[in-house]
Amino acid sequence: MSPGRPTTIALDCMGGDHGPSEAVAAAAQLSIERPDFHLILVGDAVVIGPLLDELEYEPGRLSLRHTDEWVSMDESPAKAIAAKPNASVLVACQLVSDGRADAVVTSGNTGAAILAAARKMGRIPGVRRAALAAVTPTEKTHGPNDDPFALLLDVGATLSASGRDLVTFAIMGAAYAQAISGNPSPTVALLSNGTEAHKGPREVVEAHEMLANLSEVNFAGNVEGLDIPRGSVDVVVTNGFLGNVVLKMLEGIGEVISELANDAYARKFLWRFGLTMLSSGLRQIQQALDWEQYGGAPILGFVQPIIKAHGRSKARAIGNACKVAVKAARADMGREIERAVSRVPAPEEEGAHAT
Amino acid sequence: MSPGRPTTIALDCMGGDHGPSEAVAAAAQLSIERPDFHLILVGDAVVIGPLLDELEYEPGRLSLRHTDEWVSMDESPAKAIAAKPNASVLVACQLVSDGRADAVVTSGNTGAAILAAARKMGRIPGVRRAALAAVTPTEKTHGPNDDPFALLLDVGATLSASGRDLVTFAIMGAAYAQAISGNPSPTVALLSNGTEAHKGPREVVEAHEMLANLSEVNFAGNVEGLDIPRGSVDVVVTNGFLGNVVLKMLEGIGEVISELANDAYARKFLWRFGLTMLSSGLRQIQQALDWEQYGGAPILGFVQPIIKAHGRSKARAIGNACKVAVKAARADMGREIERAVSRVPAPEEEGAHAT
Repeated sequence: MSPGRPTTIALDCMGGDHGPSEAVAAAAQLSIERPDFHLILVGDAVVIGPLLDELEYEPGRLSLRHTDEWVSMDESPAKAIAAKPNASVLVACQLVSDGRADAVVTSGNTGAAILAAARKMGRIPGVRRAALAAVTPTEKTHGPNDDPFALLLDVGATLSASGRDLVTFAIMGAAYAQAISGNPSPTVALLSNGTEAHKGPREVVEAHEMLANLSEVNFAGNVEGLDIPRGSVDVVVTNGFLGNVVLKMLEGIGEVISELANDAYARKFLWRFGLTMLSSGLRQIQQALDWEQYGGAPILGFVQPIIKAHGRSKARAIGNACKVAVKAARADMGREIERAVSRVPAPEEEGAHAT
Repeated sequence: MSPGRPTTIALDCMGGDHGPSEAVAAAAQLSIERPDFHLILVGDAVVIGPLLDELEYEPGRLSLRHTDEWVSMDESPAKAIAAKPNASVLVACQLVSDGRADAVVTSGNTGAAILAAARKMGRIPGVRRAALAAVTPTEKTHGPNDDPFALLLDVGATLSASGRDLVTFAIMGAAYAQAISGNPSPTVALLSNGTEAHKGPREVVEAHEMLANLSEVNFAGNVEGLDIPRGSVDVVVTNGFLGNVVLKMLEGIGEVISELANDAYARKFLWRFGLTMLSSGLRQIQQALDWEQYGGAPILGFVQPIIKAHGRSKARAIGNACKVAVKAARADMGREIERAVSRVPAPEEEGAHAT
């Protein structure tokens, strides 16, 4: 972060499901609420200008960086990033790389965000693969604020991960949980098919061994699938393929429960008898499964933070993602991650006994 | 199956969480209800004899095969199977291999059951790896009986699976769903991180290509994590590591929801207001997540069926597992699977372009 100016977010306003209106509304609100933020709206000035005119905002805390290219949700990320050098997500990452912003927030195409960060922003030394992290609702609460969710990573930045990649994910997840939830020593575990150190595919067994010897991470060993809804640990580490399946499954379960809880017949009874308490119990279950309220998913591995808000994000969710991005930028996670990663055995050593 | 005798189950009575009493109770009940079944109780006669004396049963439909060795839940499967040649699960598999029984049912150690089957029972020609299948609760119903669950495999027989293994799992899962649910053409999908044919790790992409060209399977393409609770297809195929995580996660979610629904405060209100309908709605959610009622998990890949009931199974669940085993035995799945597998490109061809 540059001294002498407020923490600055490059907010990619294009590409989300709702177009720029929700991002612009979030920015306007933050400009009034948070004198310690500055937001650079990245996107089509022709659209953003009139949207801003409709809103109340603090002009000194908002600026606009025009570009008329962006990546839409259904585009192939690799093709779009190659074909559109001025895509809004690339411009936002460039602003960070130029030192004009401290973090990026986008609710656009996830794959494009990962590629843009990889192309424009500096990778943390020692980190071979970026990871996309997400919060999952849990029964147990976490950290000093009793957050009802845990962090899961990688949920899809890349499909496979070596043992050393998993260790790097563990370090990055712990640093992020520490920065965001204020938990001084988050517990971290590897997702496997058994709690014993020898359980799981080779890369999980290797990561287990490395983490057991790494004092920088509060390693709790392996957890199993049932520990995800329970929330036995603060950070769960796995590869991007498995993490993606798990995350989407939780999303599907949330939708199914919502449908059951919203069943008209059941609701009629709730209303008639005024059983607000029971109704609020059902709402609690739904809420625990609705993580749009918890900001966005960080793409970890870059010196500066980049937060991917859900494509369906409304203004509140984008605002939360911006607050999370500022917290992450101020925590200076990059340096901490770099130091911890330097303690992990080098990839060459690992390569020697890899097939 | 041998002609001229009733369908015969070798029921491993040892090693479940509740000891032999539940298995013996299930067998006694079936002997009265089902004149078309015969059950061979495999286990310690010193324990089983007195248990039977306490129960009503039809002696002509039960027999006893004594052994005083068995594998307990917390033993290492490989070590126990090597050290105990007369372990009850090995004896049960031997009875099938000798033609004296048509199927095995066990509620003991899962790993030991897989090893025992591999050691004693014939593998279906062309099947390289066995798979453990399980039912998962779904919002949509399946088959002519509107079953509220789908089949997921492999859930942990082995950790990794090649493209050809996944195709074999698809064939076996379809044959089993057909035999058990009476669905003439169950839909089968690969679990991946996107629905497109190119999405997923190499083995999933390869399996997708092979399945798209295999008329024996009603292939529906890839599904994502959210399709598991929705139940978009009848059979979901993945490797044993991912399947194990998914299955245990569903189990954990079921437990968390049960705890929330059983919350004493909420229950008091339900009772006081006699809201049996709402209460039954909650019970429905719980029930959908309680798959103990749906028999057991088949270990697929052997000429004769072997069904693994949950370790916690009570008599009803073990009885259901026996009924499922009889259905599977009568469907002669082995031959059907063999025919379909013979249509899949040989492993040599696959090896040629594998790394």
